Amino acid sequence: MNRDIGLDALLAPGSVAIIGASTDPTRIGGRPIAYMRDAGFQGAILPVNPNRTEIQGLPAYPSVASMPCVPDVAIVAVPGAAAEQAVADLGARGVKAAIVFAAGFAETGADGAAAQDRLLAAARVHGMRLLGPNVLGLFNARIGFYGIFSASLETGYPLPGRIGIVSQSGAYGTHVFAAARDRRIGAPICVTTGNEADVTVGEVIGWMVRDPDTDVIAVYAEGIRCSASFMAALEAARLAHKPVVVMKVGRSERGQAAARSHTASIAGNDAVTDAVLAEFGAVRARNTEEMLDIAYLATRRIYPMRNTLGMITVSGGAGVLVSDAAETLELEMPLMPPETQARLKTLLPFAAPANPVDCTAHVFNDMSLVGQFTEAMVDEGGYSSVLAFFTHTGGAQSIAPRLRAELSRVRDRHPDRLYILSVLASPELVAQYEADGFAVFEDPTRATVAIHAMGRFGAAFARGPGSKLPAVPAIDLPDRSPDEAGAKRLLAAIGIEAAPEQSCASAEAAVAAAAALGFPVVMKILSPDIQHKSEIGGVLLDISDAAEVRAGYATLLARAKAAAPSARIDGVLVAKQLRGGVECILGIHRDPVFGPVAMFGLGGIFVEILRDVAFRRCPFGEAEAMDMISGIRGAPLLLGARGRPPADLGALGRMLSRLSVFAHRAGPRLLSVELNPVLAMPDSGGAYALDAVLELEAPP
Amino acid sequence: MNRDIGLDALLAPGSVAIIGASTDPTRIGGRPIAYMRDAGFQGAILPVNPNRTEIQGLPAYPSVASMPCVPDVAIVAVPGAAAEQAVADLGARGVKAAIVFAAGFAETGADGAAAQDRLLAAARVHGMRLLGPNVLGLFNARIGFYGIFSASLETGYPLPGRIGIVSQSGAYGTHVFAAARDRRIGAPICVTTGNEADVTVGEVIGWMVRDPDTDVIAVYAEGIRCSASFMAALEAARLAHKPVVVMKVGRSERGQAAARSHTASIAGNDAVTDAVLAEFGAVRARNTEEMLDIAYLATRRIYPMRNTLGMITVSGGAGVLVSDAAETLELEMPLMPPETQARLKTLLPFAAPANPVDCTAHVFNDMSLVGQFTEAMVDEGGYSSVLAFFTHTGGAQSIAPRLRAELSRVRDRHPDRLYILSVLASPELVAQYEADGFAVFEDPTRATVAIHAMGRFGAAFARGPGSKLPAVPAIDLPDRSPDEAGAKRLLAAIGIEAAPEQSCASAEAAVAAAAALGFPVVMKILSPDIQHKSEIGGVLLDISDAAEVRAGYATLLARAKAAAPSARIDGVLVAKQLRGGVECILGIHRDPVFGPVAMFGLGGIFVEILRDVAFRRCPFGEAEAMDMISGIRGAPLLLGARGRPPADLGALGRMLSRLSVFAHRAGPRLLSVELNPVLAMPDSGGAYALDAVLELEAPP
Repeated sequence: MNRDIGLDALLAPGSVAIIGASTDPTRIGGRPIAYMRDAGFQGAILPVNPNRTEIQGLPAYPSVASMPCVPDVAIVAVPGAAAEQAVADLGARGVKAAIVFAAGFAETGADGAAAQDRLLAAARVHGMRLLGPNVLGLFNARIGFYGIFSASLETGYPLPGRIGIVSQSGAYGTHVFAAARDRRIGAPICVTTGNEADVTVGEVIGWMVRDPDTDVIAVYAEGIRCSASFMAALEAARLAHKPVVVMKVGRSERGQAAARSHTASIAGNDAVTDAVLAEFGAVRARNTEEMLDIAYLATRRIYPMRNTLGMITVSGGAGVLVSDAAETLELEMPLMPPETQARLKTLLPFAAPANPVDCTAHVFNDMSLVGQFTEAMVDEGGYSSVLAFFTHTGGAQSIAPRLRAELSRVRDRHPDRLYILSVLASPELVAQYEADGFAVFEDPTRATVAIHAMGRFGAAFARGPGSKLPAVPAIDLPDRSPDEAGAKRLLAAIGIEAAPEQSCASAEAAVAAAAALGFPVVMKILSPDIQHKSEIGGVLLDISDAAEVRAGYATLLARAKAAAPSARIDGVLVAKQLRGGVECILGIHRDPVFGPVAMFGLGGIFVEILRDVAFRRCPFGEAEAMDMISGIRGAPLLLGARGRPPADLGALGRMLSRLSVFAHRAGPRLLSVELNPVLAMPDSGGAYALDAVLELEAPP
Repeated sequence: MNRDIGLDALLAPGSVAIIGASTDPTRIGGRPIAYMRDAGFQGAILPVNPNRTEIQGLPAYPSVASMPCVPDVAIVAVPGAAAEQAVADLGARGVKAAIVFAAGFAETGADGAAAQDRLLAAARVHGMRLLGPNVLGLFNARIGFYGIFSASLETGYPLPGRIGIVSQSGAYGTHVFAAARDRRIGAPICVTTGNEADVTVGEVIGWMVRDPDTDVIAVYAEGIRCSASFMAALEAARLAHKPVVVMKVGRSERGQAAARSHTASIAGNDAVTDAVLAEFGAVRARNTEEMLDIAYLATRRIYPMRNTLGMITVSGGAGVLVSDAAETLELEMPLMPPETQARLKTLLPFAAPANPVDCTAHVFNDMSLVGQFTEAMVDEGGYSSVLAFFTHTGGAQSIAPRLRAELSRVRDRHPDRLYILSVLASPELVAQYEADGFAVFEDPTRATVAIHAMGRFGAAFARGPGSKLPAVPAIDLPDRSPDEAGAKRLLAAIGIEAAPEQSCASAEAAVAAAAALGFPVVMKILSPDIQHKSEIGGVLLDISDAAEVRAGYATLLARAKAAAPSARIDGVLVAKQLRGGVECILGIHRDPVFGPVAMFGLGGIFVEILRDVAFRRCPFGEAEAMDMISGIRGAPLLLGARGRPPADLGALGRMLSRLSVFAHRAGPRLLSVELNPVLAMPDSGGAYALDAVLELEAPP
């Protein structure tokens, strides 16, 4: 079944039926009719109710079968069991899509999940798409379609605009819509997805990417149910240069607990979500305001590939504040060229025109100076984004008309830049500034956060395909999790080196191996049943002569026997003891939503205490691996901090990339890989996995 | 001179003169008169202008000398040199305070600074207080006093209320006022301090603490000029239970550069500012919105000593969002008691009443449920703060009146709790909720940040005096910075232990010392001229026998001679080599604003790469030292992470506290102390300074 079919019928229907239609415009089966009539929906509205012949001034029909025509979409406003029957009836009539308001399905437990499966099956058998169940619904104000029973429309309809809202939560989705409306931000389409038995957030994003009237997509998600459609939609948005701003909640442990109890979601590992959103160039907002700020600014459709911020301000204090925020965000604020600074100083001696360009309130004594200063910033400073802090002065009627004229002149000459005003002005004046092509923010810090996001979109839109994946041979996984030597053999086949080592089944073999490798050596117990060797004292370091090898062999066997009497013991691994590198950890785990995910971190406290790690979905090439490595806070340690030589980053990057390709190819039986430690040697000395644990699921 | 004198005349004058009064109500010398007449200032207004007999309907006087009476305060609206003369004339007439608008003083360089000194001297000689120069002025709307030339009053006067604003920056201070006014937050007093030749931010805070009509103080600062008055004011505010919320900019390196160019400020070390604000219980806001959010909520005057948050919500999504924010802030959200949860589930089966208490929109079907749920949260959940997320529903006219009745009933029974509504409602409805005793926020995340701040105020207000300072003997500092052995002797006198060690002037003495201490030992070059020994190879570790001691002695002397031929060499320090502890760094530096400041961190990468350090102003007792130690991110390493025994925290805390008392007593000649490393031994094994560097200024 082509899963794109039916979304047009759902989101932009030409006609609509309401099953369980009500004469009361405040009831669940009455609100959609009232809203659509009020908003002027142009298509047929077919109320279905066995007890009425007329509903809210429209002819009503006793049953689905008796409807005079087949609508594109049907709103199912009847509870539980009746909803199941209605869906079956609608499918049989050839209706393309249904919105099922009723709760009591998968969100309530096993019985509800079974009922939801039946509901979905009843729709699928007819190729009908389903929104919900347990859904508040959706609206598309462009055509006056309100398949929703939210009271939020009572306090006002959406404004025209080019933002689409997609939300798993109905209450929060309409909160976002209402907050946008109250801020005079136009978001005419809002789709809530509820239990997502069929239509998911990802599919709706995909539809909005294809919709020529939507430029910006604002998403609220608690858990991603279908990662494939979600990622495909994000990538389509990136290629179409449509910004996607995402609020994904469930970040904290408490939040994740709350998300599980709220809907039947898998909240997923939050760091993985961050990594996936970054991979596809979606920007994550921390709260509703930030989401609306970013979406609002994005509607200007200017996404600088390399974002630089120039600020003109009448308050040095505001300049400091914005500089602080920009530095935290790593948004560049290059200084103005010295000769421009000198020239501006002659125009206005009180000015401090470095960047922020503090022109003080004196600038309003000669309004042409505002234009000259701003022009200099755009022309000579070359900033892609210009923030002007004029506070209440920009809202004063005595100043605003001349200010608008000066700024508009600059904008008309350089329409490719992003212009943001931070002013306290009446809504009417704000609308005039906006009509001139300026975005308006009251708060300069919030403006800075949104400006930074535009650069992240720009960089993502400009990005080419990912770097080339390394050629890694196909690997036949064994039937069970291998011991350390086995794991290292598998890794060797894909080009991941361990320290020189040998498996030894006797003390004398160990002595010979140690002599051949050269002292000092490391000795480790070798057993497929003992994965965490150091916990049982199964690793001996600094073994420096043959006598110590013999003693060590006996010690390891005794410890293994004491700690795990039933474990199969394959002998002892003798490895050359490497020194002088930086300890790292490379890992793979299988995310329930996004599949295998690679992790990189430095050893010990960096991972365990500081959680200083980078994640990325597998597979990826070396360039992406290098980004992960250089992105951790402790990266200076690898780059040669504190007088050390730099570590062999190239070798680390190759190892990480190869591991990611291996994990992707290995399929779902690969549960996890942990290479801990990996020793990154100085200069071009290579990188070696000193230990390897590989967990496999038993074959089916 | 009593520095409190004159502030009443400045901030709440009974009469006012305007030197350089203008007939034009938009000019610097005209605006104050226009505003005061418009706002109904009750006292005498005396315009002074040699060229007019009447100004804006008031009789004008040709000179200061000719004024018919002596006003409390004078506004000096004439430029540079004329301002100096006016100040002298006003002082001679016995005017108690002057506001000097003129720029061109310390902010412009050395000449301006000299002019500012003359201005100040002219005022001081008569005991007159001075606001400015280079100041926008101040207003006190309670008495209609507008000693300010800001255009921000054109778009509306302040609303009545109990918030006072103090700002070094005029433009930003009035931005904060205007933003507050536009949000309908009452802030009737706003004082900007400009160059602070005389009156500082700290003194104005102190005045507001004493003002019975001000409950909450909002401060914008770029650099603290007088730390004594600032800290005294913060402590007075804490003791008076008046919350102070501070925006201190100049956080980032770029921000600090901007602050220097903006006013003649010393931006100070930002981490030190954080530590000082925390010490006195002031809360730092990250931006204007956060400052206003916190100030607004603080006007409810409920500051929980132990803050717990209960949330009732119609959206599970909002619950997740707030849970995430609370976890980041470490704001506790304990679960509801299980039996209460069970009872609420019987009232409303759709509810998930753990905390957040998700009661879904179904709760509005029976409005009494809102009351029952909220009452259960207050009564049985016992939360000190209750956040109710009702979004647009709380703004619907069909729901609001019954909702208000239910919530007010709960509030009347438990008026000691902090109640916050997150609703989208009309300004009129918001005002009604506020009159009922509820704070109203549109955004639940912002509400959470403000709620958290109330608990920080509550904890600070409840705090007793600091813990007892250790008895540390007075120390006579030597005339010059001592060498390592000398530094350790000074520290030993105040109870800070080094590893057992001996200064040795010959190789044979070193051999004998090593034998007495026991091998292995550490050997270090001993010279008052070589502070950073390891940089020249001046430290040898793992010296294990007499031959190595002899060789080491020669090596160290040779290296010292090569690296610093003119250095005086006192010999070599031989110390017992301690092993097995956790490496820490304890330091002291002299902050230009706040004096000696102690630093604590873990060794190596923690300080140098991760900047994981705690600061506190000296002196302090052991309890505060323990707070610093346990507050760093790497603290788990000291508490026994990764299977290690815990380090001797008590010994570390004692050392840090003693060091802080020593630094305080030592006076300004002590520039810095660095104990690096300090080894905190396992269990109760003590803590030892393995190296000590102490920098002194030469005696005067």
